[in-house]
Amino acid sequence: MLTCNYKVHPKDVDFTGRMTTVALCDYILQSAGEDADSRGFGVRDLGKRDATWVLSRLAVETERPLAEHESFSIATWVESLDRIFTTRHHEVRDSDGNVTARATTQWSVINRTTRSLVSLDWLDCATEPRQIGIERPRKLRPAASYSTEESHRVRYSDIDFNGHTNTTRYIAWMFDMLDIDKLKSRIIRRLDANFIRESRYGQTLALRLDESDEDALFAVVSDTTVMLAGISSPF
Amino acid sequence: MLTCNYKVHPKDVDFTGRMTTVALCDYILQSAGEDADSRGFGVRDLGKRDATWVLSRLAVETERPLAEHESFSIATWVESLDRIFTTRHHEVRDSDGNVTARATTQWSVINRTTRSLVSLDWLDCATEPRQIGIERPRKLRPAASYSTEESHRVRYSDIDFNGHTNTTRYIAWMFDMLDIDKLKSRIIRRLDANFIRESRYGQTLALRLDESDEDALFAVVSDTTVMLAGISSPF
Repeated sequence: MLTCNYKVHPKDVDFTGRMTTVALCDYILQSAGEDADSRGFGVRDLGKRDATWVLSRLAVETERPLAEHESFSIATWVESLDRIFTTRHHEVRDSDGNVTARATTQWSVINRTTRSLVSLDWLDCATEPRQIGIERPRKLRPAASYSTEESHRVRYSDIDFNGHTNTTRYIAWMFDMLDIDKLKSRIIRRLDANFIRESRYGQTLALRLDESDEDALFAVVSDTTVMLAGISSPF
Repeated sequence: MLTCNYKVHPKDVDFTGRMTTVALCDYILQSAGEDADSRGFGVRDLGKRDATWVLSRLAVETERPLAEHESFSIATWVESLDRIFTTRHHEVRDSDGNVTARATTQWSVINRTTRSLVSLDWLDCATEPRQIGIERPRKLRPAASYSTEESHRVRYSDIDFNGHTNTTRYIAWMFDMLDIDKLKSRIIRRLDANFIRESRYGQTLALRLDESDEDALFAVVSDTTVMLAGISSPF
């Protein structure tokens, strides 16, 4: 287990002064990277095999949104791995030691040239069986219909060092479509995301949202489904 | 002078593996906030007067773009202040102590309710006359014509704790309009930005760009000019 220490910076908060879900997810993914780096299987290590990590599924549950200037820590550990996926947990604590969020991320490795999955048989990664206490990332299905649809062309600021749309950008696109009045009071209790296909610079994507008072379903679609997400949030 | 230590994280780099200008600007602004906080005139201190800092002008000159995983520092100091503006410098150094970028930011204070400028007579801020060695942020003028125009509606992820579009979002919009092939090899030698008016959630803005091989001019316009920027970049 590795514990990473962070602080909520002005750029991490929204107009309510609370840390955005996107910023929280960025720190969660950063903690995964720091742990993998420290254990010899980070992105740079995989680059020597012409391979890279990709996020397949994510679940985040929030107890309390962090506020600007708060210090917090993320403890992260790999609970299990099989031939294709590693399952990693993340426990977010405030400076009083109270858990403010819990997350599970599931990762696989792709070949950077062929973009296809690589077996993890070679991965020397000790696991810790401790559970995080939230349900695993759910396998999401597209909604029967969506109430809102927008078109988005993938831009320079959407793509990351892998050359594909960064996972947290999809989550940002979803939040940009949510009802802003609800976001004032909403606490996102749980977010699930499934990253199904890559999308690349210049691609035009359909962003579809179905939002109710308590839940929202989101889909990113090109000729096939790129990404699905769901949030639940009692008001 | 305060020196802040940072690291280039995966989310700070673009598809070339180099730190984006937007991420660099985010850290530059963060260093200003940290210095102001440590000296008793940060955003939280100003909040007690129902006031807040706003960035008026920015100039950044880059010697070398930082790469992913590099550690770097930003030293920042206030060079001067008058009744309306403070001028602050930022010196970015890599872990070998070499200067990789220099920046100057000019700030004013507005009342959070009336959104109008507040005199800085009350500000107890010792200044350090040391120059940074780059030309002051230029006062930009709109181009005679622009070759590209897009429309952008201000979204949730664009606005910050002040409730207005975050200054670095404007810079992100400009980079999203630049020729991606040039961005592969381009080093942004100098960026100037003038933040003239606020823009707010839901506003529809015209984004206008005029790009040549070496330079680009960018304007954000509502019924009046919101923001202007210019970059120069030998290839």
